[in-house]
Amino acid sequence: MKRIAVLTSGGDAPGMNAAIRAVVRKGIYDGLEVYGINYGYAGMVAGDFRRLTIDDVGDTISRGGTILYSARYPEFAKLEGQLKGIEQLKKFGIDGLIVIGGDGSYRGGAALTKLGFPTIGIPGTIDNDIPGTDYTLGFDTAINTVLESVDRIRDTATSHIRTFVVEVMGRNAGDIALWTGIGSGAESIVIPEKEFTMEEVVAEIQEGRARGKKHTIIMLAEGVMSGNEFAEKLSKFEEFHTRVTVLGHVQRGGSPSAKDRVLGSIFGYNAVKMLEEGKGGICVGIKGDEVVFNDIIDTLENQKHLPLLSLYQINKEISF
Amino acid sequence: MKRIAVLTSGGDAPGMNAAIRAVVRKGIYDGLEVYGINYGYAGMVAGDFRRLTIDDVGDTISRGGTILYSARYPEFAKLEGQLKGIEQLKKFGIDGLIVIGGDGSYRGGAALTKLGFPTIGIPGTIDNDIPGTDYTLGFDTAINTVLESVDRIRDTATSHIRTFVVEVMGRNAGDIALWTGIGSGAESIVIPEKEFTMEEVVAEIQEGRARGKKHTIIMLAEGVMSGNEFAEKLSKFEEFHTRVTVLGHVQRGGSPSAKDRVLGSIFGYNAVKMLEEGKGGICVGIKGDEVVFNDIIDTLENQKHLPLLSLYQINKEISF
Amino acid sequence: MKRIAVLTSGGDAPGMNAAIRAVVRKGIYDGLEVYGINYGYAGMVAGDFRRLTIDDVGDTISRGGTILYSARYPEFAKLEGQLKGIEQLKKFGIDGLIVIGGDGSYRGGAALTKLGFPTIGIPGTIDNDIPGTDYTLGFDTAINTVLESVDRIRDTATSHIRTFVVEVMGRNAGDIALWTGIGSGAESIVIPEKEFTMEEVVAEIQEGRARGKKHTIIMLAEGVMSGNEFAEKLSKFEEFHTRVTVLGHVQRGGSPSAKDRVLGSIFGYNAVKMLEEGKGGICVGIKGDEVVFNDIIDTLENQKHLPLLSLYQINKEISF
Amino acid sequence: MKRIAVLTSGGDAPGMNAAIRAVVRKGIYDGLEVYGINYGYAGMVAGDFRRLTIDDVGDTISRGGTILYSARYPEFAKLEGQLKGIEQLKKFGIDGLIVIGGDGSYRGGAALTKLGFPTIGIPGTIDNDIPGTDYTLGFDTAINTVLESVDRIRDTATSHIRTFVVEVMGRNAGDIALWTGIGSGAESIVIPEKEFTMEEVVAEIQEGRARGKKHTIIMLAEGVMSGNEFAEKLSKFEEFHTRVTVLGHVQRGGSPSAKDRVLGSIFGYNAVKMLEEGKGGICVGIKGDEVVFNDIIDTLENQKHLPLLSLYQINKEISF
Repeated sequence: MKRIAVLTSGGDAPGMNAAIRAVVRKGIYDGLEVYGINYGYAGMVAGDFRRLTIDDVGDTISRGGTILYSARYPEFAKLEGQLKGIEQLKKFGIDGLIVIGGDGSYRGGAALTKLGFPTIGIPGTIDNDIPGTDYTLGFDTAINTVLESVDRIRDTATSHIRTFVVEVMGRNAGDIALWTGIGSGAESIVIPEKEFTMEEVVAEIQEGRARGKKHTIIMLAEGVMSGNEFAEKLSKFEEFHTRVTVLGHVQRGGSPSAKDRVLGSIFGYNAVKMLEEGKGGICVGIKGDEVVFNDIIDTLENQKHLPLLSLYQINKEISF
Repeated sequence: MKRIAVLTSGGDAPGMNAAIRAVVRKGIYDGLEVYGINYGYAGMVAGDFRRLTIDDVGDTISRGGTILYSARYPEFAKLEGQLKGIEQLKKFGIDGLIVIGGDGSYRGGAALTKLGFPTIGIPGTIDNDIPGTDYTLGFDTAINTVLESVDRIRDTATSHIRTFVVEVMGRNAGDIALWTGIGSGAESIVIPEKEFTMEEVVAEIQEGRARGKKHTIIMLAEGVMSGNEFAEKLSKFEEFHTRVTVLGHVQRGGSPSAKDRVLGSIFGYNAVKMLEEGKGGICVGIKGDEVVFNDIIDTLENQKHLPLLSLYQINKEISF
Repeated sequence: MKRIAVLTSGGDAPGMNAAIRAVVRKGIYDGLEVYGINYGYAGMVAGDFRRLTIDDVGDTISRGGTILYSARYPEFAKLEGQLKGIEQLKKFGIDGLIVIGGDGSYRGGAALTKLGFPTIGIPGTIDNDIPGTDYTLGFDTAINTVLESVDRIRDTATSHIRTFVVEVMGRNAGDIALWTGIGSGAESIVIPEKEFTMEEVVAEIQEGRARGKKHTIIMLAEGVMSGNEFAEKLSKFEEFHTRVTVLGHVQRGGSPSAKDRVLGSIFGYNAVKMLEEGKGGICVGIKGDEVVFNDIIDTLENQKHLPLLSLYQINKEISF
Repeated sequence: MKRIAVLTSGGDAPGMNAAIRAVVRKGIYDGLEVYGINYGYAGMVAGDFRRLTIDDVGDTISRGGTILYSARYPEFAKLEGQLKGIEQLKKFGIDGLIVIGGDGSYRGGAALTKLGFPTIGIPGTIDNDIPGTDYTLGFDTAINTVLESVDRIRDTATSHIRTFVVEVMGRNAGDIALWTGIGSGAESIVIPEKEFTMEEVVAEIQEGRARGKKHTIIMLAEGVMSGNEFAEKLSKFEEFHTRVTVLGHVQRGGSPSAKDRVLGSIFGYNAVKMLEEGKGGICVGIKGDEVVFNDIIDTLENQKHLPLLSLYQINKEISF
């Protein structure tokens, strides 16, 4: 192992730069050359490689986004793209690859490993929806970002009855809505993993009103429906004076939290170690405080991410 | 002057608590009794008064919202409501009133003064749209809040072409969009005070793209149209991969900025002094670093708020 | 079990209010009456109890500090104080107690349980130095607070050679220094758990300088020595143009992070459940994503907290 | 005017990058070439110049510090250094210069203008101590940074009597202590512009204690004495359980506030216009919302900066 490469793929997430920095510095510490590939798998196929030095990652641990840019590149699902990618990797003399991203990135990494190119996956997405790890890079920052916004909404005290619907990210996973629902004391949490009816939500609002509540906050995962759609459905029941907040890409950015910086550093450091030990087809994760190493293919095929659903019940009993 | 009262009215704004605190403490320092009226003019008519002590305003200078709650109460435009209000003020032995809020609050204060009840106005609204002052309470905090969000959006770097439309508050005034447009380096600022055509905006985006820009950020004052409407109009021209962020009430909340705390303190302190000097029908404001005192009625009828439109031109030349 | 009480003890920590809120709301949800005891064990002995309603904990989840105030009360180590405490608990008809705090609080809780009064402990301290749990309430917020400050120090770019010594909390535990050292890319981390010599630190600075580094940041746990003492020792070797930052109590405050709010909610909720199940002498903790329940006395006597020392080695290899 | 240059000098301040960005973009918009000089006057003399493009200032408006680095360079007070500087400026074909910084930077700019090289000054220092402008770049960010820290200190509620001494920057000017004193409700503000005795401060603390206050916060400008020295003097009178916080360089960094970004943009834009109009020896400033242009030499020699001392009296009456 003399030369390794790293890329970020899929939606970007705070903490990716911490992981890139750790890969670069651990690699250089151990005498390796480290290359960055811009724009994920698209850049790999296009040959968009560059040598990374310690200076390139200076002052990046505190920055949101990814200095390697990120891209979705569905074409990499096909063998043709994968072979072209390996060709480029070989052209640049790369011996091992680290990919930081979500499902799609893992799938690409699994394919490369099958084709004989050792690849290690690092879970990076704000959605927290990757199996094989308790937490993904970016999730902790994203929930803190959402909470800052919801705290501001709570500040707004008026005599009017108001219902705030806060649409947060999470196409398939309710983790963000769940954690920020607990953290903001939201009266309702609506996530893809839990069946619900509008009638139930309406009943919860009405019960709160009956007990004297003026504000109701509903955390809604975008995967269920959009905030506007939800507000419209609510309005069919009663005039709830609903206001919709759509944080959108605000949730993806920002300086990474302490946890995401530490996680990124741990992941990056251990991914390099894996490559140095001659391993490939592995994804790094964290379980409790333990770093874990899983087979990428097994993780994708046989494991499933589940949010901490106990939070859902706790919220019912403490934020009614 | 033995007993004074203070209320907040209209949309709440960060810094209102700093002003209330200054009224209470300056009043008590001078030997007055200070009452708070909950829920603005509605609470006045309803007799919702309470004596405020130093403890009541402890630890409030750093809090968003208003500890006196706020309400819109259009009924106060009528003489009947005003007379009822004065009746309540007299019942509680109040000799002078301080109202914190926007246009509507000022109008109420002017009416009370005309009816013989000395009232002083303090400009409090995040929109900055009150004549007679350079700045209103809450504006500085709101633009900092918006910028934090737009900074996060900027972090999100991808290879995709993206256009972000950020809808900010401002029904009649473009101040928030203007200042945050400059502060975020937004490529376009769309405000009610400046005519524009979608063609112009489209041309600006296309020119940026031609020069290699990937991201375009458009700051849009809600008074022009909604973010979703704007995005739809954009899409008629070309696929700009537009994402809409609607910050909504997030902009109203949050711990007040240094400036809003200091302004609130100056305003509250001077409003009490005005009452002590036997004045009424006055609104306090700031011009540069000077506290100014204007006639409320003259301010409402003859003065007009204009945002710092020079910023619009500056932005054209430095954020093209 | 009809009536329970909750107190906070020792140094306050962000997230304590989230735990109090969860205790109150979960208790009320289950039909219990919940009392708060002000000023920890001192207030218990003095009989400073008050009934807590849902309103009392409204809008507290986002607040730093503790609404029950906290106090150190070494006198509670003696039997006399403990008996007086139980007397007061009985006078108010309390059937079970929840204490939130550090070592001292646990010791008090263990003593009460031994005397027959069921008590549950919740780990609350920014230092993270309680055995039986991966994390204590307040730690996550504290490390984020420290990192914000260190990020600001990093911003300051000058041509001068500078060495920044940042003294952080941690009398016996290096957790804060360790996590924020990784998170800020600090060149050196100095903690009580790791032997070090000034010569080594000086060598690290000099090596960095030799490679062209201008800034050096040293994270120092206060338990090792004070920042000023450290700076003076450094100056014996060479003029390092050292600047000392002592964050002090800044680290204890602030709105709790997402994680501390969720942890507080989980801990509070489960502590009530323990009491309802008739248990006492238990401390609640978190291991990975699992809530764990340990015997308080066993935890105090036989378990030991160790920071994640693997971070120390990782930092050596990625922030040299 | 074909080619202009810009440098930052003295202590760095948030908003400097916004000013550099405006200079670069306004210059390029008008068809000029813009050069950056690294490390202030030291870099000028050493010939450390580089062409700046729009890309170089991309994403810098939100960054603290200065991308041109800054340096103190007392040697530039001598004619020899100035002549060498002009030689370098001519070698690079520069027709006009913009310097961003404090007193020293202005003095350098005045000297260059006297020697025939047109130079414009922009006030940039967190201390706010430059005559000819209400505000300097960086001041608004710094006071917000300080307030965040003091808010956190206030959160810490205990039953113990505590006195917090917060040492803030300001060698000759009390602006930071004054504004943050008001903004945090500090019981005492100690600044170089106001005589004081320890006896008075002690009396203020004791009066607060007598009225039931537990916490006392004292904002101390470093120009008066150090926090530790102040604490020691306090302890001669009585045991006040004093805790000292020294924020140090934390105050210089951080993402600039909305105001500093807008001010930086206005200053940079207008400085370029001045050069284009053939002017030199001018410093740009803000009075109220008006941009003002003063003669640098007159400003240095005949004008004096005074903080808003009315705040001192206001604080006495509202934060006793």
